Parts: sequence; structure tokens; C-alpha cells
Amino acid sequence: MNATIKAEVQAVDRVDYQVDPTRYKHWRLSYDDPIATLHLDINEDCGIKPGYKLKLNSYDLGVDIELHDALQRVRFEHPEVRSVVVTSGKDRIFCSGANIFMLGLSTHAWKVNFCKFTNETRNGIEDSSRHSGLKFLAACNGTTAGGGYELALACDEIILVDDRSSAVSLPEVPLLGVLPGTGGLTRVTDKRRVRRDHADIFCTLTEGIRAQRAKEWRLIDDFAKPQVFAEKVKQRATELAAQSDRPANAKGVALPTLKRSIDEAGYHYETVDVLIDRKARRATLTVSAPATAVANDIDGIVTAGASWWPLLMARELDDAILMLRTNDLEIGTWVLKTRGDAAHVLAADAALAQHQKHWFVRETIGMLRRTLARLDVTSRTLIALAERDSCFAGTLAELLLSADRSYMLSLPKDEQGEARITLSAMNFGSYPMVNGQYRIAARFYGEEGPIAAAKAATGKPLGAAAALELGLVTATPDDLDWEDEIRIVLEERASLSPDALTAMEANLRFGPGETMETRVFGRLSAWQNWIFIRPNAVGEAGALKVFGSGNKAKFNWERV
Amino acid sequence: MNATIKAEVQAVDRVDYQVDPTRYKHWRLSYDDPIATLHLDINEDCGIKPGYKLKLNSYDLGVDIELHDALQRVRFEHPEVRSVVVTSGKDRIFCSGANIFMLGLSTHAWKVNFCKFTNETRNGIEDSSRHSGLKFLAACNGTTAGGGYELALACDEIILVDDRSSAVSLPEVPLLGVLPGTGGLTRVTDKRRVRRDHADIFCTLTEGIRAQRAKEWRLIDDFAKPQVFAEKVKQRATELAAQSDRPANAKGVALPTLKRSIDEAGYHYETVDVLIDRKARRATLTVSAPATAVANDIDGIVTAGASWWPLLMARELDDAILMLRTNDLEIGTWVLKTRGDAAHVLAADAALAQHQKHWFVRETIGMLRRTLARLDVTSRTLIALAERDSCFAGTLAELLLSADRSYMLSLPKDEQGEARITLSAMNFGSYPMVNGQYRIAARFYGEEGPIAAAKAATGKPLGAAAALELGLVTATPDDLDWEDEIRIVLEERASLSPDALTAMEANLRFGPGETMETRVFGRLSAWQNWIFIRPNAVGEAGALKVFGSGNKAKFNWERV
Repeated sequence: MNATIKAEVQAVDRVDYQVDPTRYKHWRLSYDDPIATLHLDINEDCGIKPGYKLKLNSYDLGVDIELHDALQRVRFEHPEVRSVVVTSGKDRIFCSGANIFMLGLSTHAWKVNFCKFTNETRNGIEDSSRHSGLKFLAACNGTTAGGGYELALACDEIILVDDRSSAVSLPEVPLLGVLPGTGGLTRVTDKRRVRRDHADIFCTLTEGIRAQRAKEWRLIDDFAKPQVFAEKVKQRATELAAQSDRPANAKGVALPTLKRSIDEAGYHYETVDVLIDRKARRATLTVSAPATAVANDIDGIVTAGASWWPLLMARELDDAILMLRTNDLEIGTWVLKTRGDAAHVLAADAALAQHQKHWFVRETIGMLRRTLARLDVTSRTLIALAERDSCFAGTLAELLLSADRSYMLSLPKDEQGEARITLSAMNFGSYPMVNGQYRIAARFYGEEGPIAAAKAATGKPLGAAAALELGLVTATPDDLDWEDEIRIVLEERASLSPDALTAMEANLRFGPGETMETRVFGRLSAWQNWIFIRPNAVGEAGALKVFGSGNKAKFNWERV
Repeated sequence: MNATIKAEVQAVDRVDYQVDPTRYKHWRLSYDDPIATLHLDINEDCGIKPGYKLKLNSYDLGVDIELHDALQRVRFEHPEVRSVVVTSGKDRIFCSGANIFMLGLSTHAWKVNFCKFTNETRNGIEDSSRHSGLKFLAACNGTTAGGGYELALACDEIILVDDRSSAVSLPEVPLLGVLPGTGGLTRVTDKRRVRRDHADIFCTLTEGIRAQRAKEWRLIDDFAKPQVFAEKVKQRATELAAQSDRPANAKGVALPTLKRSIDEAGYHYETVDVLIDRKARRATLTVSAPATAVANDIDGIVTAGASWWPLLMARELDDAILMLRTNDLEIGTWVLKTRGDAAHVLAADAALAQHQKHWFVRETIGMLRRTLARLDVTSRTLIALAERDSCFAGTLAELLLSADRSYMLSLPKDEQGEARITLSAMNFGSYPMVNGQYRIAARFYGEEGPIAAAKAATGKPLGAAAALELGLVTATPDDLDWEDEIRIVLEERASLSPDALTAMEANLRFGPGETMETRVFGRLSAWQNWIFIRPNAVGEAGALKVFGSGNKAKFNWERV
């Protein structure tokens, strides 16, 4: 690594998820209406951290941050795009997956956080395919290994070049003693429906499987010789585009860099404020309702664009979540608060509901859905506090419903400033969690009675007693008890084992009803996290540690 | 611990799952037709390993081995039993869960294996409730904590004594920094449908929750004052018994101790033989078909009793699985073989199918179902080899279908000794895996075509080509290649990281479609295993290590 680059990467001590195409180091985005192409062309000297080179089109968190941004550009800035080709800008290699030396050098927390963000971005690809009419085609123009194949798996279809050498592979188990842990093991079964014994062979075969057999085993959808590969990809991308309902002549909405300031106190945005109490290991996230009425006709909404409150708030909240997750590991409790005028939020919700089929509103709802879903899988305790002048209305009430616990201030009836919760139509299906269930339905295990009662209360400002009766909040201390009770709750929580809390919350947040996505975050990630601290992987002679050293891994052979 | 007992426990260096009521140290079984009562009355000096006392009715593996045996006695020896009361023989304490000092002293592998067996036994309680008309009532006559509450959760209903002090609790997170990992977190949501914020409070509250609120939060079904507790339990057990279709006047089938010899080569039973190659870290399990025709009329079947081949084979296979899992940790690959006359197995299957409603046949099918399910969750590579004179017919074909891979010898058509696979009606629904799907359906992801094709082949002896065509086997090497190919498969497998294999197999064996049971084995156990090696739990200052020492745990506060 040369000196300039070394200085550059070392300057990055806080990870930043804000980027734009002019600053991409690893991806190129090109448009050939109605097809966008994402070229992965990794600059091996530009790892997000020092100490490794991103050889063979291998990636690290920085590469995935750009991918996440590129997807946002396609969603919002290019409504004319109907299908996206994901391919490589390099010859004979599509992508060789997560960089192994980076993994070997990383802390446990870094690995886990990196994998989670990667999973979320890939889920986001499928989310856009399912909800927004964006279809994805992986054009694997060379070796497609490990995380590279996992990226392809997130696309709707996979075409592999048939050049007698390129193969798809998941070599993690035989090569590194870890799992194909960013969706690979799950998508091979749940999405591709590869027979389990074929999957077993595939996942233990370092060299992978080439075109013909890969198609027979359902690992890819199609293959093509090098001389016709580009043509076949274009043809298939055009066919996928024809299935889309994205508009032909709409003008995109530009996504400017968020206005954010960072200081000792925390992170500050226009609609989101994060105050960090490092001693208490706690952050307070306050989301503000719009200060004035939001645009509610399509022209006004599109003109407002990225400053339209629902989108602005979603983008700022998303960034705040990512910043805290990556940069503030010891901040174990997030207190969720809201403030402002519920009427403005409910008006915004009405506009969201009314125009939900318009491409821009649909994308905004998608952004809210994915941001709230990110909260659900965040390994921090979430406590919602509905205090005086809080604003848990409609979309903002999802914050309360995503919390592990919620406390609402109870005041004598009609006393000024009593907290209110108001549900809107958006709380009943617009924001499904990754288990496919919306939060109120999941809260009540799909039971008709309490769900219908909550629905009947739509639009009514609910005081503490009503909210408690409907089961929307955990407890409603009164003015006398509030301060002590909340203090004790927060102090007790902060005293518990962070690991036990992470695992407990992951189990309780996702009750019955698993989907491919929850299986990735639950079953697969939990197993991978286990392996990521086992000596067989990360010990001095562990497979991940010795990779590339010429030494052989030494295993403890006990089966656990 | 006194010297006699110390000598006794140290003599047990190989764990043995064979026990009978005359040798119970911790449970008493009593019968009051149609109700059986299981009294947990733990002898604190009789831990299965030295170094800890089983105080406060806390348990270890030895206690669970007796429970497993007691359930078998009720199932087979007491067909007149229709409901089972699980209670404590001690005053004011039902059960305080797994012994913490035992956990603190145990290796990682021991903890994981112990939890798995405990989970299987509890799933077995629910399996008998679902399939065999045995209803279970937890009569919690005192403190019901941790694993004690998890045992209660496995019962159909829970009654707690309302004595102003007894509570149900899951104090693992706040007290020990680990999870309620033997089903607790999962059953609280999936089975009891406790609201997630209530569950969050419950699982972080050391002292637990007493009768009234416990019922409001669905943690228990009912409660009763001490003076009416016994009466209420009897009344409810009688009502549960009334729902059962177990026969009133049938004679039970005694379960004698299995004839088993153990030597350097392995474990040897009448119908199952286990040969262990320690150098290759491989065991070969060979299951034999009946030597002669089995009884196929009900009188003959009941007269044969425990020596009836389907039951004998299931019990022996179950024991072999448990012995290998616990005592032979480094034996990472199990080769599954069969031998004998397929006609005898198919005749046994026909009898199983014909008399499946008869209580004894139903129990035998249940025993086979649970044993095969135990294989599915075993953390060892399973390779089935269908060689000359093998007998993968009907029920025995489930062994092949449970394997990670299967290889079948291909010989020229009609050459003497060609391997055959024959499916029976029992392969199409009688033995669901813990995900509720039968193995052929899971193999083909529920797709109609290949399932129908397999079904159409029922009763036909399939050669290698036909089995491969139907997708029932992985590969069919011919006589020339067989030896080399199998040798390479086994050697390569044995070279891979045991941890990565365990996790990979757990993911690939259970594809889409999770149930409460798979969520216990997958999501919950994987998280618990992770915690079980994290320094925050098991490090020098970890919560599990310092428990009882008076020292406070020291945590690394990073959230992962």
C-alpha cells in the first residue's frame, strides 16, 4: 500500500455511509434506457481500512456502501430504469466475494456488522424486485465465488459465461472454515431450490461448478459462450424490463447528500437528532414531525423531492441507524422519541396512502419500509418513550411498535400535553418487517380481536389508558413515577450482558413465521457468528487466519 | 460430595442412556389410572459428573436421561395413561432449571450436546401430545425457574401455585448472561404467544412473575391456592385425559434393557451395528432388516412387543445415535448402511401402515419418527451408501433420505447383487422431520412432479439408474469407480472444519418452512451456542463463570 492511500484510509476512523457516484471507487453505473448496468470494478488499493488489498474483485464494507448508494440512485434518480444488470468491469472475474484478509484482520463486531449491512443491501435488491418493479440480472462474466455468488443469488436471475473455466462457487467451508454467511446457504435452498445433496456437494467444492451442471442443479438460470454473452444478457435484461411497471417518461428525484453535523453530543440532521450519553451507554434518537404541512398532491410531492418529509426523514433515520451501529458499538440502548405535530404526520401518511401507486411515492414507502426493517434487525435494545409533546402518529408510530418495550406517560384526563398515539392506515400493512408481517399483526400474533380493535382506533388520538388497553404500549407510568421508572428501566438494561441481550432480542422480535430473510438474519447469521469466534476459524491456526500464509489450518476435531 | 458418590460418578466415563425406573435417582413415576404423575425429586449428590451438587431441584444430563426413559415407559408400558402430570416431589420448588455450576464446569461440546438432548426430550413431549393422545400438565407447586419453566412450557398446560411467593421465571439473561436456550425464548412467543414486550420484561426479570400477572401475560394457564392446588391439578388432568383416545384396557409392552455390547470396535446391537474407525474419524452404522418375516397381525405384533423389529430397531438406533453423539465427539462422519431382505422390511411397513391406529403400532411409528428426527439434528456428516446387498427399503430408506449425500452402486443391469431402493407408503408422510415435512417432500421442496414420480415408484425395487433419475440418490458410481470415489468423498469430508460442517449441514438440512421445533434447534440454539463461547459468558470474568462466587461479571460492552 503506498503512503498516500495509507494516510487516506487511516483518516477514516468513523465509517460514513454517505457517498455519491462522483466519489465511487469500485462501481460504475451506466444507463441504456430502460436498463441500468452496475459494473463492479474494484480498486484494490482503496479498501475502507488499511492492511489489505482488494484483489480479484473482492469487496469490503466500502464496496457495499457504494452498492447501497447506487441502488438508491437507480430507485429515485432513474425511474425509467426497469431492469438492472449486475456485472463486472474486469475480465474473467465477476467477483471473488468478501476479502479474506480483511476478514482475517477484522474484529468480531466488524465482521458481524459488515455481514449484516451486506445482507440488508441484498435483501433490498429483492425488496425492489418484489415491490418496485425493478428486476435484477446477474451477468456473471467470469469467476463467481463466495460473496460474489451470494450477490448474484440476490438477483432475480443469473447468467454465467460458459468459457470452460468460469464457475460459480461457495468455497467458504472448504477453504476458510466459515459459512457462505451473507445469504448463500439460505438462498441456495429457499430461493434457488437446489436439492440439498447437490447443495452439500456445491458448498464443499473449492473449485465450484461450471455452466452446464450449474444450470442442471439450478445454481444459475442460463449460460452463454463468451462471444454471445453480452447479447444474451441484453436480451434477457430487456425481457425482464418488459415485466416492469416503472414509468417511461418520469423525471427522477435527485438525492443530495444529507445535511448532517457531527459533534461530541451526537449526530444531527434536519428531522432526526441523535444524542449520545457515553457514560450511560445510551443514545436518544428523536424524530421530528414536519414543521409545516407537507405537499400532498403529486406535483407538489415530486417538486419537494428529496426534501419531502417522508423521504427526508427515512434517509436521515437510515443514516443515523447505520452510523450508530458501526461507529458506536458500546451504545447498547437506543431510546426512541418523537416530537411535533401529529396532524402533519397524518397528512403525510394520507398522501402516502393516496398516491402509493405513483412511482416516487412507492419508492418513498419502500425506503421507509427498508429503514424500519433495518431497525428490527439492529442489535441494540430499543425503548420507545412517549412523553409530553411526543408524536407517535402513523408512520412514526412504527418506531414505537418496533421497540422492545414502550412507555407512555399517563396524565390526568385532558391535562395539557398528555402523550397521544394515533394510528393511520399506514400502520396496517405498508411496512412489513422482514418476516412479511406488519408490526401490529406480529405484535398480536395475527389474532383477529386485538388487530381489529387497533384498526378501529385508526385516526383517534389515543391517551395512555386507551393505548394500554389496546395493547399498543408496554406500560403507562404517571407523572410521579415516570422519571424513576424510566431511569431504573434504562439502568437495569444497561447492566445486562450485551451478548445475551442481542440474542434475546433477535429471538423475541421475530416470533412465529419465518421467511427467507429472517432465516438469513436468524439461522444463518447466528451460526456464522458462532463460527466467527471459534478457534477453528479465528484461532492462531484457524482456517480464516492462516489463509494465504501457506500454512494449513489446525482443527479441534470435536463435533459440536 | 462423599467418597462413595465421587467414586461412582467418576466411574461413569462413558455416558449411558439406558436406564429403568428401578435405577432412577431423580424421578418417581406413579400411576392413578388414567393419570400418570412424574415427580421430580432430585438427589443433589447424584450428578452425572463430579464437581457440583444438584441443589434446588436443578438438573443435569442424568436427570434428563431419566425423564426420557420415564416418557418411554408411559408411552409403551402404560397405554392406559391418558394424561401426565409433571410436578415436583419437593416443597416450594418445582424446578430451578439446569444446574449452573455444571454449566460453568462443562466444555462447550458438553453444554451443546446436553441442550440438544433436553430439547429433543421436550419436543418428544409435544410429539406425544400431538400424535399419541398423551396430554401433559405442568403442576408447578413452587418456584419454576429457567429450565424448570422451559420444561413446563413443553407441557400442554401450566398451573402455578399461588402462594404469594412462587413465580415462573427465565432469569438466564439477567443472572447468567446466557439465553433460556432449551426452548424458552421460542415457546414463550410461538407457543404461548406472550406479547413481545411482556416477554422482554419477563426474560430480564430475575425474580420472575407470580400467578395473577403470569396468567394475564399468558405465561401460565391457571393458578390455585396451595390448599386447593392438588385438587385443581387432578381435576384438570382428568379433563385432559378425557380428550385422549388412548385405550382403557390394553396391556402395556415392557421395554427391557437393550442387548448391547461395547468393545474397541464400537457398539453392537441385535439390529444395529456401529463400527468406529478412530483414525479416519468415521463410524459406520449398519442397520439390519428383520432376519425372518415379522408379525403382521395385531396379536402377533403385541406379543412380539419390544422384540418386534420396527420397535427394536428404532430403540437400538436411537441408543446408538445418542451414544455416538455424546461419547465420540471426534467421529465426524457417520456412514449409514443397511443390509438384509427388503421384503421383510416392506412387510413390516405394511403392518405399520395397516395398524397405524392401534395404540402400540402408533407408539412404534412415533418412536421411529422421533429417532429419525434425532438423526436430522445430529451434528455429524451423514453419508448413506447403498452397496451390494444393502436394504434401503421403506422405513430404512428414510436413513438414505436423511443423509447429506447418498451414493448407490451402479452395476450392469441385472448383475447379481445390484443395490435396490424400494419406497413404501411409510415414506410419504409417516415420518415428518421437525419442520413438519416428510423427507421426500422436503427433498423436492414440495414440488408436485418429482414427489408424484417417487410415489408412483412405490413398491418397485429401483436400481441405481432409476433411483438417480427419480432424484433419490446423489450419485451412482459404477463398480470400477466405487471404491476410489467413496474413499475420496470420505477423506475430503474428514479434512474440513468440523464447525463449518455442523453449521452448513444445519442450514442445508432444513430448507424453507420453519416450525417452532426448527426455530428451537436453528435460531435459538445457534444464538445460544454463540453465547456459550463468548467471553461475556464463559471468560474468566464471564457471567456463567462467576455465578455464585460473589464476584460480579465483567462485560465487554460492545454490541455485536
